[in-house]
Amino acid sequence: MTPEEFRRYGRQVVDWIADYHERIASMPVLSQVKPGDVQDALPARPPEEGEGFEGVLADLERIVLPGVTHWQHPSFFAYFPSNTSGPAILGDLLSSGLGVQGMLWATSPACTEMETRVADWMVDLLGLPAAFRGNGVIQDSASSACLVALLAAVQRTGGSAARDGIDRRHTLYVSSQTHSSLEKAARITGIGSANVRVVDVDPGTLAMDPAHLDALLTEDAAAGAVPVMVCATVGTTSTTAVDPVPAIGEVCRGHGVWLHVDAAYAGVAAVCPEFRWVNDGLAEHADSYSTNPHKWLLTNFDCTLLWLADRAPMIEALSILPEYLRNQATTSGDVIDYRDWQIPLGRRFRALKLWSVIRWYGAEGLRAHIRAGARLADALASWIAADPAFEVRDHHPFGLVCFRPRWAGLAPDEADAATLALMERLNASGDLYLTHTRVGGRVLLRLAVGGPATEERHVRAAWDRIREEAARPTA
Amino acid sequence: MTPEEFRRYGRQVVDWIADYHERIASMPVLSQVKPGDVQDALPARPPEEGEGFEGVLADLERIVLPGVTHWQHPSFFAYFPSNTSGPAILGDLLSSGLGVQGMLWATSPACTEMETRVADWMVDLLGLPAAFRGNGVIQDSASSACLVALLAAVQRTGGSAARDGIDRRHTLYVSSQTHSSLEKAARITGIGSANVRVVDVDPGTLAMDPAHLDALLTEDAAAGAVPVMVCATVGTTSTTAVDPVPAIGEVCRGHGVWLHVDAAYAGVAAVCPEFRWVNDGLAEHADSYSTNPHKWLLTNFDCTLLWLADRAPMIEALSILPEYLRNQATTSGDVIDYRDWQIPLGRRFRALKLWSVIRWYGAEGLRAHIRAGARLADALASWIAADPAFEVRDHHPFGLVCFRPRWAGLAPDEADAATLALMERLNASGDLYLTHTRVGGRVLLRLAVGGPATEERHVRAAWDRIREEAARPTA
Repeated sequence: MTPEEFRRYGRQVVDWIADYHERIASMPVLSQVKPGDVQDALPARPPEEGEGFEGVLADLERIVLPGVTHWQHPSFFAYFPSNTSGPAILGDLLSSGLGVQGMLWATSPACTEMETRVADWMVDLLGLPAAFRGNGVIQDSASSACLVALLAAVQRTGGSAARDGIDRRHTLYVSSQTHSSLEKAARITGIGSANVRVVDVDPGTLAMDPAHLDALLTEDAAAGAVPVMVCATVGTTSTTAVDPVPAIGEVCRGHGVWLHVDAAYAGVAAVCPEFRWVNDGLAEHADSYSTNPHKWLLTNFDCTLLWLADRAPMIEALSILPEYLRNQATTSGDVIDYRDWQIPLGRRFRALKLWSVIRWYGAEGLRAHIRAGARLADALASWIAADPAFEVRDHHPFGLVCFRPRWAGLAPDEADAATLALMERLNASGDLYLTHTRVGGRVLLRLAVGGPATEERHVRAAWDRIREEAARPTA
Repeated sequence: MTPEEFRRYGRQVVDWIADYHERIASMPVLSQVKPGDVQDALPARPPEEGEGFEGVLADLERIVLPGVTHWQHPSFFAYFPSNTSGPAILGDLLSSGLGVQGMLWATSPACTEMETRVADWMVDLLGLPAAFRGNGVIQDSASSACLVALLAAVQRTGGSAARDGIDRRHTLYVSSQTHSSLEKAARITGIGSANVRVVDVDPGTLAMDPAHLDALLTEDAAAGAVPVMVCATVGTTSTTAVDPVPAIGEVCRGHGVWLHVDAAYAGVAAVCPEFRWVNDGLAEHADSYSTNPHKWLLTNFDCTLLWLADRAPMIEALSILPEYLRNQATTSGDVIDYRDWQIPLGRRFRALKLWSVIRWYGAEGLRAHIRAGARLADALASWIAADPAFEVRDHHPFGLVCFRPRWAGLAPDEADAATLALMERLNASGDLYLTHTRVGGRVLLRLAVGGPATEERHVRAAWDRIREEAARPTA
């Protein structure tokens, strides 16, 4: 593709994206295709001859869009938001256009140094501990961040796992509310699912019980296990429960165990002073911490930030230097080589998109975005609370509200089935998209606000639609 | 950013990228900055107020570009190429613009189904085994691909590692030429570096010795170890050596051990019939196979393809289904949820860029690109061979040529130091960028051709520059 062709098609793609966001609200949120529809519509064999980019754009409309679930739709309330924004898209486009690969400082110093600087900006923006300064790195996801933290934690136990493999019973501490990526990390690292110890939670708040954690740690150590890491969560996936990090941190300190704090969704809220409490305990206790600008901070996937209070055990665990990667800058020790801070070797210039976002919005703009989401969630929760046909969980400090119809007269299992059926009907309608969870065995609907396109009228329309659908007699 | 602002700034960014590629040859290939220069030039604190995108573009010129090592420069010959191209950039831009997250089929069916289809297209384009059809997935890197393969291989040994953790001595088989990501994977999975067994190579071809592999497997099993996986490489990083996959596969079959074939760099060459030999043994023996369109196939990082002959052990190793991810499509078993095929949970719509590349170039265009790189490498090797002051390795089947000055009169260690000093001077000049390796203890220069912008005149200029610099008297 010549530069002239790139200019021409590039404008078409930019316009297509702008048009897409302008008309997105007219499309069904959840894709209506059936398994195999998209695959069947794509040619079974690759083309022998090349063609103009017009064909890609035409098939994007004809084949791809019907198969897309529109995460940027103003009525997308499922999972957590996966924010994007104009400056993020353009920052990422610059990264693709530069086409550099920043595995080593030497292979593009700006890729490494902007990442360090922007991670430090996030320390300022979120009010994170000073020890995190210079110790931040962008990962693809919170899953990878917790995996890297776990490998560092294993290294810090002083065993020889990196050299000899796992040869002791290591244990990892989570609650029933912790993200499944922690169990996945236990499997990947050779620790094993059975050695993931599930700490009790308070049945009301769903927050981890530090006393039970303490008891488990004591019991396991007495039984000869080597506890590796505790994962506390600020803003769980299910209900945005908040574990008591200061108290958990005290327990970790007492047992000499690594504390990872997973604030994948909620951590970025700390950009607002009124949410700074999400950082409680980090400065005193956190060995590692992660939060995702790609969820609620206007930066498109993938962009997770991971910080470590001490990077040394991570690098001991992950660094291997073959001859073909040796270079003067690495040998000097004066630079960061981010390849040793992650699972893969190669890496994109992801700092560009976060840099673009922070400059475009400024701290003020980021705060306004977080506040808008939290305010809409508060409004929704108040509307639900005012409707006697529904019940809502009191706890909704961020953008997620959990609730359900009361289903007067139905047994608990019947009520759960009715709630799930309601959700399926709503999602199938294409009018909105929401997901569910279970608390104390009972099904709750989850409605997560926080997409940049979502305004009060969309939340209001969603709530009206839910009430209407719940009241409808079903066959 | 409003749609109108996005259109305006989007055009500016597209033009900036087109301009960048038009003027790239005038910039020094290797960044000339010193450690800290870029970081110091970026403000120490994030902005309180937002600003227009003009500031980003201005600082891109002023701060970022001087700190960039230009991987797309026609005189970039280091490592392996990290191709990008217009259609790849635009396909990736579409992915950013759509902003979907394809962890599950249900969260965007097109993201999953286009990936499956495009991976099948690659099976056709490269002439890969029929068993790979429907079993391909895009990973971020070959490192992650081999890690996933290793986890599947551990699962297939029939132990209970996913549940109970690593509780036997598992062994992994590589050669001294295997990529360092295999040892990294052994550390990550809890197998340990010390259980990575290094199989002898032929001192001439540097290819793995199947007889020694057989002996090691027998010895380890007799000593009570559980061999997990053998990694054969087609096109090693150091010199593009090619392991004898058919013979290695026979040994693996005899011992019931998983065979992963890492063709990260060279595998895509099979798009040309004359390179189809790189697939020898795959159909009969490979349990998993990976190659990187992001190296030599015009698709920007990150885009590694991983195929498995049988996906079941991978999914057993990696699948965990919490309540908040349950959905009808997953429960039906009719769809692929790619989250179980990778380390992270979330995933970008990466298939769009590969789809765009294949449609724009067609099979013909992809073949022309591979042939251009291989032809230039052949030409370079012939020029070096004709110069009595240099020696060149005979083996250069792809785009990489390894060579060195003979340095008449210098002892081997002095010659190595002179070769490294030559490389440092060349790289510091900004005229070209190349890296080095060691073979039999001796330093060789590596010159990898294959960037889309590289023409014969650039390779010729590089060779002239190397000869001139090698002949220059140094202090």
